[in-house]
Amino acid sequence: MAGVAHVVVDWGTSSFRLWALDGDGRVLGERRSAQGLAASGAEGFEAVLEDHLAALGIGEGVPVMMCGMVGSRAGWVEAAYVDTPTRLDDLVRRAVTVPSASRRICILPGLAQRDPSQPDVMRGEETQLLALAQESFDGIACLPGTHSKWVAMDGGDVTRFATFITGELFQLLRSGSVIAPAVAGAGDANPLDAAFALGVGEGLGSPETLSAALFRLRASWLLAATAPSAGLSRLSGLLIGAELAGAARLFGDLRAVALVASGPLARAYRVAFETAGIADPVLFEAEGCARAGLHAAALAAFSRERSVA
Amino acid sequence: MAGVAHVVVDWGTSSFRLWALDGDGRVLGERRSAQGLAASGAEGFEAVLEDHLAALGIGEGVPVMMCGMVGSRAGWVEAAYVDTPTRLDDLVRRAVTVPSASRRICILPGLAQRDPSQPDVMRGEETQLLALAQESFDGIACLPGTHSKWVAMDGGDVTRFATFITGELFQLLRSGSVIAPAVAGAGDANPLDAAFALGVGEGLGSPETLSAALFRLRASWLLAATAPSAGLSRLSGLLIGAELAGAARLFGDLRAVALVASGPLARAYRVAFETAGIADPVLFEAEGCARAGLHAAALAAFSRERSVA
Repeated sequence: MAGVAHVVVDWGTSSFRLWALDGDGRVLGERRSAQGLAASGAEGFEAVLEDHLAALGIGEGVPVMMCGMVGSRAGWVEAAYVDTPTRLDDLVRRAVTVPSASRRICILPGLAQRDPSQPDVMRGEETQLLALAQESFDGIACLPGTHSKWVAMDGGDVTRFATFITGELFQLLRSGSVIAPAVAGAGDANPLDAAFALGVGEGLGSPETLSAALFRLRASWLLAATAPSAGLSRLSGLLIGAELAGAARLFGDLRAVALVASGPLARAYRVAFETAGIADPVLFEAEGCARAGLHAAALAAFSRERSVA
Repeated sequence: MAGVAHVVVDWGTSSFRLWALDGDGRVLGERRSAQGLAASGAEGFEAVLEDHLAALGIGEGVPVMMCGMVGSRAGWVEAAYVDTPTRLDDLVRRAVTVPSASRRICILPGLAQRDPSQPDVMRGEETQLLALAQESFDGIACLPGTHSKWVAMDGGDVTRFATFITGELFQLLRSGSVIAPAVAGAGDANPLDAAFALGVGEGLGSPETLSAALFRLRASWLLAATAPSAGLSRLSGLLIGAELAGAARLFGDLRAVALVASGPLARAYRVAFETAGIADPVLFEAEGCARAGLHAAALAAFSRERSVA
């Protein structure tokens, strides 16, 4: 494949995404798989990576910039956390180089917040923040997901952040709890269902009774035959509403909020933001941000080398 | 077995407890097993019950009063919910009789709160409330467990109640979530560990950030090597603290609170009540209350029949 300046990879616990980019960050080729950490550890990280590169016809010498759990202790090479508060520029400076005979391979570090009253970590999302910094975003960034991140950004610095395990609670509750039958059924939560907005309102207005509201999903199904599809949407709304209440508690008034998300999650959080009266969030597409952040890191790390060489 | 006035049974989803009582409620014999609903449904409810009665040498004609999930739709015979607000006396009046050739067998109904904004159900715990009513308890009763019940009682009436799935969240999080390794290890949460009280304080003071506090358990384990035993105690404290915050929101100032619990759960909630400044709860032993409530129901249901006969 001609014209490839570098390859960037977002390699997480359960997924692998690779893009071949030109010097302007345009996508020339792409690979996706479910070869997350667990799957790749057995086969060997280098073999997995080189297989994908070969499939795109990318020869030796083309450098690779990676982020995500591949840099954790259980990953390929550990990229030690950068402590907050920090400039996002520091991520590139603190990238680790992976031994490889065929090319330069770097892994970006995650962020650690070591304040003993608010310990927190992220690994992967910080690359999306790099893209926001390049757009000079200042404010609170919300990156929803299995583990939603809320991040205070100021002039290219990450000052602090917090993780809410909203998506994980959703999965635990829908699959293995007493409320599972009340939220069972095909498909996803529907943010356009009135039950979703009702859930957001309740989670936001009364987050301390969340655990009682969860049981009420079952009671409403038992006593009033509430449809499980409505129960599922209400469950999603409740959890996201409680997350918004928590974010407001930690970060104050939620103004100047960026929403960094894709697909159904983006739709759900947009509706939740509206319900919560969070006006005009700046919208960023999550995958585009990951790619743009990795591209910026690759430019910073590799073009210097090229100019030196 | 001589002198048995009646037999009482608390038959739940996962456990079976039976007591043979004399006319004053003294225990003459006892049986316990893990033959909850799922296990008993296959063997047949009558066979399971009669086996236990035969093992104690209890002959035909001795009546049996039961409560719990055995009266649910998935149980032996459905005992339709009694709607709140209700007098607890109504439970006995609304007991259903199970067809049996060998004896009179009754199942007490559960309670349903049909208020569409606070739908809730209980089945089993209402029998413990019968015992509290006999002691003329007025106030808020807390019955902790997998699904903790908080109940407003007034002059023998249940006016309203709420269920918090505290114990279930604890099990889901410790066994199958991202924080599992941070709370792993043998044994139970220790309410005497300082981490427990810290968790209660945080859950009570900042319930809206519970989901972030959960992730912090993992971060603290990763960054500061916090011992999983401390993590487990803190997890328990966080969830119980959030439950107390929710109960305060729903029931107002938590004065005149009864704690109906046994064993480790009783110890944990007593410490949590102290941390929360809930003064001098009235303490009831949960199993004793279940037995006393069933005994009172059996007296009311069967002695009338005997005097008529």
